[in-house]
Amino acid sequence: MIKPLKIGIVGGTGALGSGLAARWADAGLHVLIGSRRIESAQEMSNKLLQVKNGKAGDPRRISAGLNFDIASEADIVVVTVPYDQQEGTLQSIRDVVQGKIVIDTSVPLVPPKVGTVQIPKNGAAAVTAKFVLGEEVKVFSAFHNVAADKLQSMEPLDCDVLVFGDDKEARPIVTALVEDAGMRAFNGGGLANSIAAEALTSVLITINRQYKCQAGIRIVGTE
Amino acid sequence: MIKPLKIGIVGGTGALGSGLAARWADAGLHVLIGSRRIESAQEMSNKLLQVKNGKAGDPRRISAGLNFDIASEADIVVVTVPYDQQEGTLQSIRDVVQGKIVIDTSVPLVPPKVGTVQIPKNGAAAVTAKFVLGEEVKVFSAFHNVAADKLQSMEPLDCDVLVFGDDKEARPIVTALVEDAGMRAFNGGGLANSIAAEALTSVLITINRQYKCQAGIRIVGTE
Repeated sequence: MIKPLKIGIVGGTGALGSGLAARWADAGLHVLIGSRRIESAQEMSNKLLQVKNGKAGDPRRISAGLNFDIASEADIVVVTVPYDQQEGTLQSIRDVVQGKIVIDTSVPLVPPKVGTVQIPKNGAAAVTAKFVLGEEVKVFSAFHNVAADKLQSMEPLDCDVLVFGDDKEARPIVTALVEDAGMRAFNGGGLANSIAAEALTSVLITINRQYKCQAGIRIVGTE
Repeated sequence: MIKPLKIGIVGGTGALGSGLAARWADAGLHVLIGSRRIESAQEMSNKLLQVKNGKAGDPRRISAGLNFDIASEADIVVVTVPYDQQEGTLQSIRDVVQGKIVIDTSVPLVPPKVGTVQIPKNGAAAVTAKFVLGEEVKVFSAFHNVAADKLQSMEPLDCDVLVFGDDKEARPIVTALVEDAGMRAFNGGGLANSIAAEALTSVLITINRQYKCQAGIRIVGTE
């Protein structure tokens, strides 16, 4: 890395966002926790700062701010808000993420039937993200099938991450971020393909209910 | 099993169908190979009969016939035809599969862009199967993400199978069939959820192109 990257997590107080924040902070990245309420962001930031960096023993580098402000400051933006807030949130940060990498983690779950696949209007939530953010934003989607509880445990992760996005030049950076979070990344193709991982989340929820577990997926047969 | 089950494979001369046929024959099931051309079915049947049953050393029990005839005779019907033949084939066997279990393996691949996810008109190819076959048929979908080459190799299989279907009573029979073919089965929910596995096939094709491999998936975290 040319300079220490700042990763902004929009919706960083949730289970997925805060789990990723902890993993990335321990990998040496500067993490910005975003929320709609500054108090919530500060609270989560303080909570995460109480844990010592697992690898180096250095203090974690974590800041807090409003979603808009941390999206402005960050080099890379990760969006981890609930599905019903996806479009509004993306619209609110649109102007300040132009030219940046934005990783959307949205899964089109429609409560209460979260175990039933819902196909969003554009064919994939990731495609909606691209529509809202525009051509100049390097939009990717990832982390759809990661059990947030397991991310937060800081135990080794037994799952892979499918990454979708059409910007080939930016893709290695997203791959590196997945690896910094402790998982293997597989390029699953363009944004339209994201529906495969988005839909798989409802399937994993269905499996979780049967096994009382937090299931994930591994890609096998690539060796 | 109360009686030796006859498994009819409609489109049984293809890579997936013949691979499943070999696995099931070796598990002691009576397999009926179906094709639109009786000569093709007979040829594949003869080819598969030349291999000795791996487990018991008994001769494999494999017959051949036209798709319509083997679907009539079979207790359970598995449909492994190319996507563009799905609807026509299902219509042609509709009358003779009433009351039976039908496992559809269709994946909505649209050549030449088989690495790009296509969402079919009903939201999933499996839902189309149910529409065509009607309420009295116990429709399931499965085997979307199995590398046909690996099925045919008769080596141990390193992948899991997601099974979709709304008939809870019949589901254990489908699970048993997956296990007889040498894989673990996971209930992924109703037929609408099948799009997750159907779409995942294009993602796996995208991965295969990068790694020059035959990728599959494992469900992890259920123990």
